[in-house]
Amino acid sequence: MKSFIEYSSDSDFPIENLPYGVFTSDKNAQKHIGVAIGEWILDLNIISRLFDGPLLKSKQNVFKEEKLNAFMALTKPHWIEARETLQKLLDVSSPALQNNAELREKAFVKQTDVQMHVPVEVGDYTDFYSSLQHATNVGIMFRGKEAALFENWKHLPVGYHGRSSSIVISGTPIHRPYGQTLPVEGAAPHFGPCRLMDFELEVGAFVGGPPTQLGERVCAKDAEDKIFGFVLLNDWSARDIQKWEYIPLGPFTAKNLGSTISPWIVTLEALRPFIVDNFPQDPTPFPYLRHDDKFNFDIKLEVDIQTEKSPVVTTVCRSNYRYMYWTVKQQLAQQTVTGCNLRPGDLLGSGTISGEAADSFGSMLELSWKGTKPVRLSTGEERKFIQDGDTVTLRGHCLNATGLRIGFGRCEGKLLPAIHFQE
Amino acid sequence: MKSFIEYSSDSDFPIENLPYGVFTSDKNAQKHIGVAIGEWILDLNIISRLFDGPLLKSKQNVFKEEKLNAFMALTKPHWIEARETLQKLLDVSSPALQNNAELREKAFVKQTDVQMHVPVEVGDYTDFYSSLQHATNVGIMFRGKEAALFENWKHLPVGYHGRSSSIVISGTPIHRPYGQTLPVEGAAPHFGPCRLMDFELEVGAFVGGPPTQLGERVCAKDAEDKIFGFVLLNDWSARDIQKWEYIPLGPFTAKNLGSTISPWIVTLEALRPFIVDNFPQDPTPFPYLRHDDKFNFDIKLEVDIQTEKSPVVTTVCRSNYRYMYWTVKQQLAQQTVTGCNLRPGDLLGSGTISGEAADSFGSMLELSWKGTKPVRLSTGEERKFIQDGDTVTLRGHCLNATGLRIGFGRCEGKLLPAIHFQE
Ligand SMILES: [Ca+2]
Ligand SMILES: [Ca+2]
Ligand SMILES: [Mg+2]
Ligand SMILES: [Mg+2]
Ligand code: NI
Repeated sequence: MKSFIEYSSDSDFPIENLPYGVFTSDKNAQKHIGVAIGEWILDLNIISRLFDGPLLKSKQNVFKEEKLNAFMALTKPHWIEARETLQKLLDVSSPALQNNAELREKAFVKQTDVQMHVPVEVGDYTDFYSSLQHATNVGIMFRGKEAALFENWKHLPVGYHGRSSSIVISGTPIHRPYGQTLPVEGAAPHFGPCRLMDFELEVGAFVGGPPTQLGERVCAKDAEDKIFGFVLLNDWSARDIQKWEYIPLGPFTAKNLGSTISPWIVTLEALRPFIVDNFPQDPTPFPYLRHDDKFNFDIKLEVDIQTEKSPVVTTVCRSNYRYMYWTVKQQLAQQTVTGCNLRPGDLLGSGTISGEAADSFGSMLELSWKGTKPVRLSTGEERKFIQDGDTVTLRGHCLNATGLRIGFGRCEGKLLPAIHFQE
Repeated sequence: MKSFIEYSSDSDFPIENLPYGVFTSDKNAQKHIGVAIGEWILDLNIISRLFDGPLLKSKQNVFKEEKLNAFMALTKPHWIEARETLQKLLDVSSPALQNNAELREKAFVKQTDVQMHVPVEVGDYTDFYSSLQHATNVGIMFRGKEAALFENWKHLPVGYHGRSSSIVISGTPIHRPYGQTLPVEGAAPHFGPCRLMDFELEVGAFVGGPPTQLGERVCAKDAEDKIFGFVLLNDWSARDIQKWEYIPLGPFTAKNLGSTISPWIVTLEALRPFIVDNFPQDPTPFPYLRHDDKFNFDIKLEVDIQTEKSPVVTTVCRSNYRYMYWTVKQQLAQQTVTGCNLRPGDLLGSGTISGEAADSFGSMLELSWKGTKPVRLSTGEERKFIQDGDTVTLRGHCLNATGLRIGFGRCEGKLLPAIHFQE
C-alpha cells in the first residue's frame, strides 16, 4: 500500500494508520471530522459523498457531524468499510481524489494549520488500574512488599468512574490545583496548592457500536465489536490531595482537574499487526472475563518532560502497552458485569502502565519512588514531581520488523502555576 | 396564589411548585418539556411563545428542546422569570391561557397519559456521602464505634464520580446484578447474583448556569446560582459486590447498575420557604467550603416497599433532607475545588440520608443493621435486603404551617430477578 500523499518512513500517520480526529481551522470554525495522513488531514466532511460502499452509502451524514459519536455508533463492518474506502481513495493508484485538483485543494489541510478538539462526546469515562507493575509499585510504597497487591486485584480489573467534563485535548494547559492535604499524619489538614503533581501514562480505549441496554452484560469474549480505537491519556493526578480524600470512596478531586488525551483515535484495525500475547493470568479469571484470543498490543510508550528553563526535552519513561495485565476486553466486561449500559464514545482508561525496569514506570510517583530518588533531567535539573512550567508529553507508536509504523501523535500538557485562592 | 387548574390540598404539584420534566405521550412521540400542576402537565413546547418577559423573549427556543439543559444553561434571573411567567399564566385571575379553550386543549396533558423521561442530559454524576448519621452507621457496622468516621469526613464532603449512562427514570425496572463477591473472608471469590441488594435514599441536585471553565473554583458562598433544582434519587447498591471491589478506588460496578431519579425537577425557588438551619459543623470548614446563609431544607423523605405477594405497601423509612451535614453548596465547592469544570445538567447526589431514629435510616443495610435485624413489613413478610419482585418507592414533600405543600412525586423501581449468566 502506498499513498499519493508523501510522508517519511517515521511518520506517525502512514496510510496503514488513518486515525480519526476533529479539527477547526482559521478558515473554518465549524468542527470537521478528519483522518491524519503524513503531515496532512483529509477532511471527511468535504469528501463524505465518496463513502459510497454498500454500508456507508446511506450513512454519509455521520462524516458531517462535529463529533465522532455517530460514526462510532455504527458497527465494525461500517468502520472497516470506511477504512477500506479511505485507503483506496488515498492510494497512489487511485485517481478519484489524486487527480481532482479542486477537490484536493479543499479536502486536505495541513496539521500545523488546525486546532484539534476532543473528538468525541464522552458520555462516561472510567479509569482502570490494570498494570500489575504499577499496582505493585504503589502497593510496595504505601503498604510494603508483602501486602502490595490487594486481594481483589488479580480477580477483577479494578476501576472507578472518572470525570467526563474535564477531559481535554492535547495542548490544553492544566493549572496546579488547590486542595486539602494532610501534610502530617494525625495533625490538622492543610488547604493550599498541591505539592505532589503527577502525570499518569495511560492509553484510553473508546467504546463504539450501538448503545447497549441497561441490564445487558458484554462478556470479554464478545467485547471486540465494542472497541473502536485508542488514544494516549495523561491522567493528571494530585497525589497529596488524593491521599487525604480517597478513603473510603476513591479518588475524586485529585483526578477531575483535567485528563489530557491525544487528538487522533487510532483504530483497532490499524493496531491489529501489533497484537501480542496476553499477560499470563493466574488465577484464571471467571468465565465472564475470559477470552481465548490475543488482545494485547505492542505499543511503545514514552513520556517527555520539558522544563521552562530550556528547550531540551528529557524522556523520563519508556514503557509499553503490552505490560497490561488485564486486556481492554476484560475491562469492558467488568464495566458491564452488573448490567451497566455502554454508549458509543465511552472512554476506558488503561490505568498507569509501568513495566519492570525502573525507567519504565508510568508516573513520577514511581519514577522518583515517592520522591526519594529524584529523576535527573538532561538539563541538569531534578524532578521528584511535576513543577510549574513543566510540559509533559506522552508519545506512543508501534513498529514492526517490516518497518510498518503506526503512531499516536502527542498528548501534551503544560502545568501552569496555581490560581491563587482569594478568601 | 390560586390556579384555575384545580387540585387537592395534598397535591405534590400546586402552583407554588411548578417542577420541570420531559414527557412523551401516545399522541406525540417527540419529547416535550412540561411543568406539573395538580394532576396535569402544562406543555411548554406548545406555549413557548408565551414566555415574553424581557429575558426569555429571545430564548423561547429553550422550551422547544427535548431536554432541559438549554434552559438550565441560562441564569437564575431567567429561571425566576420563567417561574413568574408560569405562575401568572396559571393564575385564576389570568385569562390568556384559562380562556383560550383551543390552546388549553393542546397545552394540558394528564400526567396519567404520558411517559416521563430523564429530563436532562447528565454530563457527569457525582455521588456524595454527606449524612453524618449514615456515615456513622456504616462506620460502626464495618469498623466499630471508635473508628466509625474517617478522619477526613468532617473536613470535606467525601464524594466519588458515578455513572451517567445508567441514570434512569422512575418506573424503570432494575435487574438484580451478577458480580464478584467474597462470601468467606480469605476464601476464593464467588461469581453469581448479588445477595445483598439495597436502595439508598438520596436527593439529587442538578447544576444549572453557564458552563464553568477548567481551573475555575466555585466556592460555597458563590454556589447558589449554580443550583437549578432537586429530584429524588435511589442509588441502587449491591452491597456484597461493593465490599469486594471497592478497595482501593471506590464503588464501581456495585453502583453503576442503575440509579433511579424522580421525573420532576423541583426548583430551588419552590423550596425556598422550607429553608432551615444548616447542620452545625465542627470543626469549621476551610474558607472555600464556608457560606453564611442557611441552605438546608426541610424535605420529608419516605421509602416504601411493596412485595410481589401483596398490594400492601410498607413505609420502611422516614427521613429528612435536613439531616445533611454538608450543604449542596459545599458539595459543589468540593466538586470544583481543584478546578473541575461544571456543565449544566451535572447531577450531585446527596448520599444516603439517615436520621438518628432507627426508622429514619436511608438504606436496608442500616434499617436491618447489616442483616441482623429483619425489617417487618405490613404484610407479615420480613426483609433484610431487597428481594426479587420488590418495588421500592422514594417519596418526598415539604409542608409548612400555612399548609403549603411542595412535593417531589415518586421515584420508583422494581427489582427483577437476575438475568441468568450463560457461559
Ligand atoms: Ca489513572
Ligand atoms: Ca450513594
Ligand atoms: Mg483524570
Ligand atoms: Mg447509582
Ligand atoms: Ni429486562
